[in-house]
Amino acid sequence: MNPYTFDRFLAWRSGVDFYADDPFLVQLTRHHAGPDFARVDGEARAISRRASSRWREASDAISVLEARPRLQHWDAHHRRVDRVVRPSEALELEREVFSEGLFSASTDPLTRAVKQFLVYQNGEACIACPLVCTEGLVAALDELADRPETIAMREHLKEGRDGRHAVGAQFLTEIQGGSDVPANRVEAVRDGDRYRISGTKFFCSVAHADYAAITARESATGALGLFAMPLWTPGREGAERNGLTVDRLKWKTGTCELPTAEMTFDGAEAWALGPVERGLANAVRIVLTVSRLTIGLASAAYATRAVREARAYASFREAFGRPVDRFPMVRAQLDDLERSVRRSTAGAFEVHRRHRLSGGDRRRAFEARELVMLQKVVASEDATRTIQEAMGLLGGNGVVEDFSSLPRLFRDSVVNELWEGPRNVLLAQVHRDLQRASTWVPPGELVTSLLAGRDDAEARELRDEVVGLVAGPDLAEERPGAAESCRRWDAACRALLHAFQDAAHARVDAG
Amino acid sequence: MNPYTFDRFLAWRSGVDFYADDPFLVQLTRHHAGPDFARVDGEARAISRRASSRWREASDAISVLEARPRLQHWDAHHRRVDRVVRPSEALELEREVFSEGLFSASTDPLTRAVKQFLVYQNGEACIACPLVCTEGLVAALDELADRPETIAMREHLKEGRDGRHAVGAQFLTEIQGGSDVPANRVEAVRDGDRYRISGTKFFCSVAHADYAAITARESATGALGLFAMPLWTPGREGAERNGLTVDRLKWKTGTCELPTAEMTFDGAEAWALGPVERGLANAVRIVLTVSRLTIGLASAAYATRAVREARAYASFREAFGRPVDRFPMVRAQLDDLERSVRRSTAGAFEVHRRHRLSGGDRRRAFEARELVMLQKVVASEDATRTIQEAMGLLGGNGVVEDFSSLPRLFRDSVVNELWEGPRNVLLAQVHRDLQRASTWVPPGELVTSLLAGRDDAEARELRDEVVGLVAGPDLAEERPGAAESCRRWDAACRALLHAFQDAAHARVDAG
Amino acid sequence: MNPYTFDRFLAWRSGVDFYADDPFLVQLTRHHAGPDFARVDGEARAISRRASSRWREASDAISVLEARPRLQHWDAHHRRVDRVVRPSEALELEREVFSEGLFSASTDPLTRAVKQFLVYQNGEACIACPLVCTEGLVAALDELADRPETIAMREHLKEGRDGRHAVGAQFLTEIQGGSDVPANRVEAVRDGDRYRISGTKFFCSVAHADYAAITARESATGALGLFAMPLWTPGREGAERNGLTVDRLKWKTGTCELPTAEMTFDGAEAWALGPVERGLANAVRIVLTVSRLTIGLASAAYATRAVREARAYASFREAFGRPVDRFPMVRAQLDDLERSVRRSTAGAFEVHRRHRLSGGDRRRAFEARELVMLQKVVASEDATRTIQEAMGLLGGNGVVEDFSSLPRLFRDSVVNELWEGPRNVLLAQVHRDLQRASTWVPPGELVTSLLAGRDDAEARELRDEVVGLVAGPDLAEERPGAAESCRRWDAACRALLHAFQDAAHARVDAG
Amino acid sequence: MNPYTFDRFLAWRSGVDFYADDPFLVQLTRHHAGPDFARVDGEARAISRRASSRWREASDAISVLEARPRLQHWDAHHRRVDRVVRPSEALELEREVFSEGLFSASTDPLTRAVKQFLVYQNGEACIACPLVCTEGLVAALDELADRPETIAMREHLKEGRDGRHAVGAQFLTEIQGGSDVPANRVEAVRDGDRYRISGTKFFCSVAHADYAAITARESATGALGLFAMPLWTPGREGAERNGLTVDRLKWKTGTCELPTAEMTFDGAEAWALGPVERGLANAVRIVLTVSRLTIGLASAAYATRAVREARAYASFREAFGRPVDRFPMVRAQLDDLERSVRRSTAGAFEVHRRHRLSGGDRRRAFEARELVMLQKVVASEDATRTIQEAMGLLGGNGVVEDFSSLPRLFRDSVVNELWEGPRNVLLAQVHRDLQRASTWVPPGELVTSLLAGRDDAEARELRDEVVGLVAGPDLAEERPGAAESCRRWDAACRALLHAFQDAAHARVDAG
Repeated sequence: MNPYTFDRFLAWRSGVDFYADDPFLVQLTRHHAGPDFARVDGEARAISRRASSRWREASDAISVLEARPRLQHWDAHHRRVDRVVRPSEALELEREVFSEGLFSASTDPLTRAVKQFLVYQNGEACIACPLVCTEGLVAALDELADRPETIAMREHLKEGRDGRHAVGAQFLTEIQGGSDVPANRVEAVRDGDRYRISGTKFFCSVAHADYAAITARESATGALGLFAMPLWTPGREGAERNGLTVDRLKWKTGTCELPTAEMTFDGAEAWALGPVERGLANAVRIVLTVSRLTIGLASAAYATRAVREARAYASFREAFGRPVDRFPMVRAQLDDLERSVRRSTAGAFEVHRRHRLSGGDRRRAFEARELVMLQKVVASEDATRTIQEAMGLLGGNGVVEDFSSLPRLFRDSVVNELWEGPRNVLLAQVHRDLQRASTWVPPGELVTSLLAGRDDAEARELRDEVVGLVAGPDLAEERPGAAESCRRWDAACRALLHAFQDAAHARVDAG
Repeated sequence: MNPYTFDRFLAWRSGVDFYADDPFLVQLTRHHAGPDFARVDGEARAISRRASSRWREASDAISVLEARPRLQHWDAHHRRVDRVVRPSEALELEREVFSEGLFSASTDPLTRAVKQFLVYQNGEACIACPLVCTEGLVAALDELADRPETIAMREHLKEGRDGRHAVGAQFLTEIQGGSDVPANRVEAVRDGDRYRISGTKFFCSVAHADYAAITARESATGALGLFAMPLWTPGREGAERNGLTVDRLKWKTGTCELPTAEMTFDGAEAWALGPVERGLANAVRIVLTVSRLTIGLASAAYATRAVREARAYASFREAFGRPVDRFPMVRAQLDDLERSVRRSTAGAFEVHRRHRLSGGDRRRAFEARELVMLQKVVASEDATRTIQEAMGLLGGNGVVEDFSSLPRLFRDSVVNELWEGPRNVLLAQVHRDLQRASTWVPPGELVTSLLAGRDDAEARELRDEVVGLVAGPDLAEERPGAAESCRRWDAACRALLHAFQDAAHARVDAG
Repeated sequence: MNPYTFDRFLAWRSGVDFYADDPFLVQLTRHHAGPDFARVDGEARAISRRASSRWREASDAISVLEARPRLQHWDAHHRRVDRVVRPSEALELEREVFSEGLFSASTDPLTRAVKQFLVYQNGEACIACPLVCTEGLVAALDELADRPETIAMREHLKEGRDGRHAVGAQFLTEIQGGSDVPANRVEAVRDGDRYRISGTKFFCSVAHADYAAITARESATGALGLFAMPLWTPGREGAERNGLTVDRLKWKTGTCELPTAEMTFDGAEAWALGPVERGLANAVRIVLTVSRLTIGLASAAYATRAVREARAYASFREAFGRPVDRFPMVRAQLDDLERSVRRSTAGAFEVHRRHRLSGGDRRRAFEARELVMLQKVVASEDATRTIQEAMGLLGGNGVVEDFSSLPRLFRDSVVNELWEGPRNVLLAQVHRDLQRASTWVPPGELVTSLLAGRDDAEARELRDEVVGLVAGPDLAEERPGAAESCRRWDAACRALLHAFQDAAHARVDAG
Repeated sequence: MNPYTFDRFLAWRSGVDFYADDPFLVQLTRHHAGPDFARVDGEARAISRRASSRWREASDAISVLEARPRLQHWDAHHRRVDRVVRPSEALELEREVFSEGLFSASTDPLTRAVKQFLVYQNGEACIACPLVCTEGLVAALDELADRPETIAMREHLKEGRDGRHAVGAQFLTEIQGGSDVPANRVEAVRDGDRYRISGTKFFCSVAHADYAAITARESATGALGLFAMPLWTPGREGAERNGLTVDRLKWKTGTCELPTAEMTFDGAEAWALGPVERGLANAVRIVLTVSRLTIGLASAAYATRAVREARAYASFREAFGRPVDRFPMVRAQLDDLERSVRRSTAGAFEVHRRHRLSGGDRRRAFEARELVMLQKVVASEDATRTIQEAMGLLGGNGVVEDFSSLPRLFRDSVVNELWEGPRNVLLAQVHRDLQRASTWVPPGELVTSLLAGRDDAEARELRDEVVGLVAGPDLAEERPGAAESCRRWDAACRALLHAFQDAAHARVDAG
């Protein structure tokens, strides 16, 4: 009897194009692509049509509770299979996205980043983390693959085989600790030209992958190595696991479509990536950096999507006789959200640019690495806050999971904050890195570089604070006043990254 | 093979007592109870044993995905029943908690609040919202029940019948708007001494309740009345609905154990509570105020629980060779969390005290009402932030729903922010209220009263800001600079409530 | 540690071809196809490859409990949609099978029957009943469609539209009785050139169909008409129902993949098929006859599949040192099962042949109709017994639903016995039909015709029994001795149909 | 709008009492109880009230798909628990039924049988099989427990501990074969005064039990022993398994509420029951005999319940203007069903009596054992047929699982046919037993004894057939004509058991 409908809002939502209808993103692409703009723009428009419609719908469809991945340990004929059962919509979505060949030698980094940014607007969807982990594994293999088995994996991941691209995973965390990777206890025993991995990993994201990058301690030397491991016995894919059991799937608050497992290895075959004694360093330098980099992109993408929908809703919805977005309170919020989303996006692409252009230059590489960590912390937190505010603009409908995708994006973002290094660990790491590098990268110069030469009062104050704190004791040292230094460092890092983002944003606006 | 276990942490968790092991809460109780402390303390200890063990376990048990409430529209014999099917553990938990008789005439308000605070430490659990809604309905009936039907409801809700206490609900929101209650379209048609309600309500929390407070527009006069409605045909409970269908259960991000429904009424019988033309005012003054008040208590309770567990985890868990809580970064965070939790708790009990002592005094009642709204906004947001930080201290385990209750508490808190009036609406309301009341409650005096006489520089600055903004134009007015005023008002409200909480906290610490 | 596997059996099962590996079926096809054999055989081989592998696997995949169809009454935006949600594997399977164009004008009846027989070997799978109902609706439309709306439906069902073939349904049964169609209470009110249907149907199989054949009582005349009804508002398919609600999906023992609903119509648009006063007769003569005919084919197909797998299992499995099929007890059982399956299959194709060749000849049509009813009863019962015995040959594994498809085929067969007219009703109907027709179809001649001229002692005895019972009183008459007559009639019917099947079987064996 | 309801039928169903409203059962109890009738009748009435209402409702409630038992391998803290998760209604039902103390020393065998018969009328319900397995384990322990560990188990099972009675299980079947127990490969290695069990069992019914009777081959001697095994590490019940993993729960057609598992043992502690070399013999003689005996009772109970409800439905339901049960066809069926149920029931109690009175007398014990096997085969088949016919009397409603309990009883009965020895194996065993015993139990005398002295033509014919077939070759011998002998033996066994049941029935009717 009540004739009210959301049809106008829903019609807008069905039709909106993540790229074509986002002038800021087009401008940003133009800014970074330079002479290649026409080509990159064309590719972005093509993938955006799929991401904005078919993939968007699939992402929502597989988010329902009934579609959660589950684990089949044994089949009906008592064959241990440890299959991760996912809905066929998820399989199809993965197949389509991976067949874009994002990590193919023929895809340039900027195009890849723009495409990822568009794909990530659908949230995790059992796509974001698999893409990230594949990217990290590809990066490691690009640098370190040196034998037929690992070269074959690299080709399978980058270029596909029989029309299907392989999916990568990362297994680092163990039950006794996540961030404390050096405490890893999983063992690797040399067996001819390969290794046999044994032990338990506690957070194995992308449990359905084809290959994983895994850290393990070489039994003979105690060195913590990095290995590439197929998850199935080669030639028996889908039927026989490679010396491992998938013990349990985690029940997480967010990224629920993504199977994250506890796994036990019992002599699983794997191949070393690079020298075993450089394993931990390579894992952090290559694999984790790629993951953290992507979290920056993903955070900006989630927030972009959420704010776009909240803005549209606020202009559709009326209360007390006016469209909601005509209330100054809402207006202020929308403006703030927009600004936050743009600076996150501009920042993410700028970090991405610096990262990919840093090759060979030690100082630029150092700066990029620190930026990636700062961004991981700040951008993921900003995304959570931004999306939650966006949800609030939908009122009670904002927490209804099938009313919009916002609650899902929000939950995914909460997980983004905690994996791949939580706040405390990363901020302490940056502080320690800056201390250690201060002889060849003076912290004040680093701040100036990040702020692109800004030299106003605010910039100077920030620089002084950073320089002062880096000159102080290690933040991990237990001493009077340590807590207060930590609070100040935390605030300084956030301010620094925001200033970096603002500078990047300003450059994009400047054209 | 990895011998690591969480057993020490889990053993602590099984044994901890929400009241007996919380000296601050005991002190707070002593502070408020005065000469009644021994009695209140005894009652608190008794319920705390149940809340900390049996009810805590039940709350976790019913949170699994398989246990979500579902709707049975028809039985196998084509009888429309619209039953909300909940797991038997939820039924038992509800039975036990409600049989505490929290709203009985024999339970004094402070004891009730302490008990609620303990019960709420288990999160929503399909208990918190039912308690709140029952409390609000009881409050309305206490003041307005004036005929056999409504008096019988009141007795059933307060004192129980055949050993079972009835459960109350609140149905205000409609599809075209939540906060904009005056836009309600559901109709009430007079039918002898009762009313017939028709139309659709869009967020009917506690859909499994026995009775609901519902707003509807009297067809003859257009007045928006408040009515008490049984959800089943009297005498046919569980078998025949009272002229209504339960269309759908919402799939919410949090408070998932609580059935929130879309319902359509088609001549449902109801009785007016008070004069129909005073319905909206009574709904806001009595029912919504009680709900918002409880959100303050619940927010503090959720955060208390989360911080307690995070603190225990941080002292148990080691990383890089040390218990995590010995890192200054963590130390600082824990201290901040603790301070936040205590001020929220002290504040919630102080608001509660002011609310219950305000009866009869117009000015105190006004202050209490504004406080309740400010607290609703600020305390629920603080709880979300606090719990999320607490989750972060568990690292990756922090987002695993069955590792601890923190993710559930977090999601419940997110919902708390959005129902019963979201931020924008309430802050604008407070501004408008202060403007209107400024002739008899000068805003500066109100600030002074809330700050308990503080007169330092910070307090003065805050008072000036409030006075200035109240003297300005209505925040809803579209004009240049309006957005900036809104941002300032938002910040001032938050600062004011925090200052109020800090003052309350200081008094508790002072004994 | 126990190295036992079922691999050899499973490998056989993956590879077996329902048609190419079934010499009896090939022979039967040759027998019926005559000069067209090469063409029919070719088409059978082509569809058999799909039916034996891809569709077989899909049928098992959608049978898991998690994949059961469910009903979505409302979407998240309070739009009543009454969608039947089925797994995407079921949608794809349906699309593929229906795109075979079985009811296209270009598919001859024998080819269609052979194809159906092959498809049905996968059990119901939400395919068998939709095919049957579509076939019945097409038959009715072929004879009775006389206006644009019904002609368009016919084309959509037979030849497809935009690459997708429509699916048909049959809604006859009401809550007060299934077989007693004349007691139907659903009403049809004339509205210009269409009808408006109102009331409730209690067993609406193929609830996800596009169009249904439905019986309803014309309000003006009281006549029970047959109508064709779209299930969605034309042009709003998938979004808006045609004046109906889908109240509930049945939870059945078998055919679980098939959504069978209780539906309420409230002015649903429909068009009369033929003269309203001939509706009941047309429904029985055309629609029900087609359904019952197919149950004969399906029963033989289910049993064929079950016995094939049991035979393979018995030759694979060892007990007490021997393959199980070398025990005489098992040998005897396998031989009996094989014989039962062959006579059912031969009988089903012979009934099918007589049915399709009966057009125009009143006596042959009568015989065919009675045969169809007798076969419905006997063949479905035989299939249940046969499949259950086949399950028994798998021992305990025989009742394990994911060990083989036999339990599913068994449950589907149990349902086949009960829908489209249960035993008692059909046998009584045949008796009454034979009594009424005895002036122009002497019962003895009918028996002789069914037995293809056999005149041995057994045949004569059977003929005398039939003649005697038909000469007696109506079986529905309450009188002393009636029960005994019923028992004898039941036995005679079963013997008669078996003798008919044996004769058909003998002719196939004879080439 | 259609006012039809099933209310009258449903009201009858809610009120009917399985014992008090079944004069035949009361008469049967009187017949067997003799002078103890008053006491047994009183106990039967008491338990019947629970069985007919509360337990009946619980049995239906736990049968829904959502309530199926599931397996939790690991908890959220990576502790392997292998918990069988069942709904709390099932736990409560089990607790209530087991607290009847059916196997207590203070419960006499007839009372126990009557109570079991009443409890079994609710189908499996995760009660029937646990009772049977507990009974068998108790019987084995009563005869063979000879050390503190096994004596403690016996007391826990019979008399309870801390107010809770333990539940027993039976683990015999392995993947390579069920009936062929001598082929068992699970190993038992002596370890001081206990054994360590290793290997895999494939059908572990009552997977949630406390203790199991398990067969295993003693590694040192190759003898197949019988052992009693706790399923949890003593003192760590619910938290740590006794050297075993629960690999998978079976998905069965029937007895779905009962968890039946595949389990792997890896050094599980167990204690020998009797001399190891007598293990197989004891397992068959004691444990399997008790199970098979109970299947006789259960089959009669399931059928009794089904026919009672079908009869009531047929008298309530109308078709073509008459209550369905007034059609002679239905009348005949109901009469036949009633007769079948009564003879099954009378037979089951008579077999039970002979079994319990056979102690000490070798010949009577032999007769009882053969009777138990014959009854297992014939009664379970009869029950399936009977229940299916009863379902048919409900028309389409007969296959709707939540319309009545009949589909569930039917599926449970189908499983009863296949476990504890399927038809072929048991009939061949009886033949072999009779051949071997023919020197001291002439087959003709055995037939005469079973028929209670009947000597009419039919009896003589049956006796001659049995005598002739026993005088022939072993049925397992592969030779010409063997299949025909098997068919005849099958028919003779069925006829013999039916004649035995008829004789027992006649004696009950005679008073």
